[in-house]
Amino acid sequence: MTKPLLRVLAGESLFPPPVWLMRQAGRYLPEYRAVRAQAGDFITLCTSPALAAEVTLQPLRRFGLDAAILFSDILMLPWAMGYGLRFAEGEGPRLPPLELADIDRLDAERLPAAIAPILETVRLVRAGLPEAAALIGFAGGPFTVACYMVDGRGGGEFPRTRLLAHGEPGAFDRLIRRLTEATITYLGAQIEAGAETVMLFESWGGILPPNLFRRYAIAPAQRIAAALQKRFPAVKLIGFPRLAGALIGEYAAVTGFDAVGMDTATDPAVAARMVPTTVALQGNLDPMALLAGGDALARETDGILAALRGRAHLFNLGHGIVPETPPEHVAALLARIRAA
Amino acid sequence: MTKPLLRVLAGESLFPPPVWLMRQAGRYLPEYRAVRAQAGDFITLCTSPALAAEVTLQPLRRFGLDAAILFSDILMLPWAMGYGLRFAEGEGPRLPPLELADIDRLDAERLPAAIAPILETVRLVRAGLPEAAALIGFAGGPFTVACYMVDGRGGGEFPRTRLLAHGEPGAFDRLIRRLTEATITYLGAQIEAGAETVMLFESWGGILPPNLFRRYAIAPAQRIAAALQKRFPAVKLIGFPRLAGALIGEYAAVTGFDAVGMDTATDPAVAARMVPTTVALQGNLDPMALLAGGDALARETDGILAALRGRAHLFNLGHGIVPETPPEHVAALLARIRAA
Repeated sequence: MTKPLLRVLAGESLFPPPVWLMRQAGRYLPEYRAVRAQAGDFITLCTSPALAAEVTLQPLRRFGLDAAILFSDILMLPWAMGYGLRFAEGEGPRLPPLELADIDRLDAERLPAAIAPILETVRLVRAGLPEAAALIGFAGGPFTVACYMVDGRGGGEFPRTRLLAHGEPGAFDRLIRRLTEATITYLGAQIEAGAETVMLFESWGGILPPNLFRRYAIAPAQRIAAALQKRFPAVKLIGFPRLAGALIGEYAAVTGFDAVGMDTATDPAVAARMVPTTVALQGNLDPMALLAGGDALARETDGILAALRGRAHLFNLGHGIVPETPPEHVAALLARIRAA
Repeated sequence: MTKPLLRVLAGESLFPPPVWLMRQAGRYLPEYRAVRAQAGDFITLCTSPALAAEVTLQPLRRFGLDAAILFSDILMLPWAMGYGLRFAEGEGPRLPPLELADIDRLDAERLPAAIAPILETVRLVRAGLPEAAALIGFAGGPFTVACYMVDGRGGGEFPRTRLLAHGEPGAFDRLIRRLTEATITYLGAQIEAGAETVMLFESWGGILPPNLFRRYAIAPAQRIAAALQKRFPAVKLIGFPRLAGALIGEYAAVTGFDAVGMDTATDPAVAARMVPTTVALQGNLDPMALLAGGDALARETDGILAALRGRAHLFNLGHGIVPETPPEHVAALLARIRAA
């Protein structure tokens, strides 16, 4: 019997839809915080297969979700290529702001050894997965990874990155190409280790003007999707072009992903008209409605379910769970969806 | 002879289009920094008519732009209603994070006296305006103003505001309603003082999920536009629903603005198909292309001009000028547009 998540990725419409939640493994769960404290720092947690597999599976035990997503971080890819990375407690990632010479120092040769513990996590999770749940691997979109490398931190504005993309297109092309090739290798290895689908998180591509969005978000995603489809014709792929706005339809049509994620601001009914009907839609509850709970959660959930009924749909958030979220609100969300 | 900017707002297509730039008066100009130093703090500058009028007119002297926009800040409205506001040097605005009881303490009675110096600035600018240039007044969209009040600062995430909008809809409705009424008063007074058009900056409405965007960004804008159109039937109005994505067409159609601004991520050709043809489009060069200058600036400028040729279009940025921008790049942009 094919798992519900994989049936939807193959184009089938199920009601109620399968559900998983971005950042479903994380700080809002006390059992996560316990493992995190045991690991010490965040990179250690991501590279300790037993611990990373444990936190990956925790939310499935609590809530009976339809998928596990590998516990890791989009910045583990540049880290695996020798690029500096640390996580400042409570402040997010910090990287050495990129100099142009760093681009050619990114070391794809290091990748196989460096990602070995992450692939071991994939194997452990797959072996421990509940029967009906699917395992999702992931990577960051090349532009999004480049944002953190060039600016050295998050924040959402990424002024150095945007200036580099406009002002030094040759160098920026080279950076994106290297990250694109490494992403193909990385996602391919996750699939070989047992990931049943993979998702590309292009969290920040939508801050670009449209022509650069096409060049640095759509074109690399198309290249990644085509390479993986050639190597793994049976494996379905998910793209998440956050902030793509009115370009979500073009993103879906050009990249050839089997599903695309919608961010919180997207009207699911509008997206359903823009995205080819052969492509499943994923999303897009506002994590703030999940945090609020009660009427707001019920109303927003019902609205999304109604807007996408009859369409291939994976219920999810439009952005990650916030750490203050009461786990009971997640349980209430699951109950609401399954009683729909 | 009607001013070019007002002709476009009345639906006429001009080529090359009239041009003005968000934050055209500001820190990138040495003559602005001199006046700012003289004024001391930012609120003093905004409430000193001679100084505020001087900085409003500075960029027109340098670049021969088609419009002046009142030098002020969207947070001068809550300030004028007695809400605390200060500008931390280099860090942006700081306000006391809103408590529910504060909503009923917002004092519309204070408004006329508190905004008197701002209206005097409008009169001075209008009297000193070059013949072909138009004067634009403005206010923040009620939701955007609420974001700064509820969270107490900028940053783009506004988690307290989004939680309040979901979790306490009655209180949030009341806050938005009070700000909407005050905005009508404020913009009406600017028009009476000499503003030839007014613009509503809904800079952060697009972070809301679609139903809340309709309730807290579209509906208040519609109310503001309708009230002003009734009182001033000849005055044209501009709305700027930043981050509206695929909802820009609905925003334009429902609010009834005469022009809508496009943010940097919007594809002008796509927006031109979504927005009713009777509505002029404003925008949307990436300020980072202006900062980069050279080929990037020329290419992006030409692309926008070509995409909107034949449409009523006001050339502008998609977001404000960044302080590091060389003034010569602005001169190069103007020369490029006018030679098109």
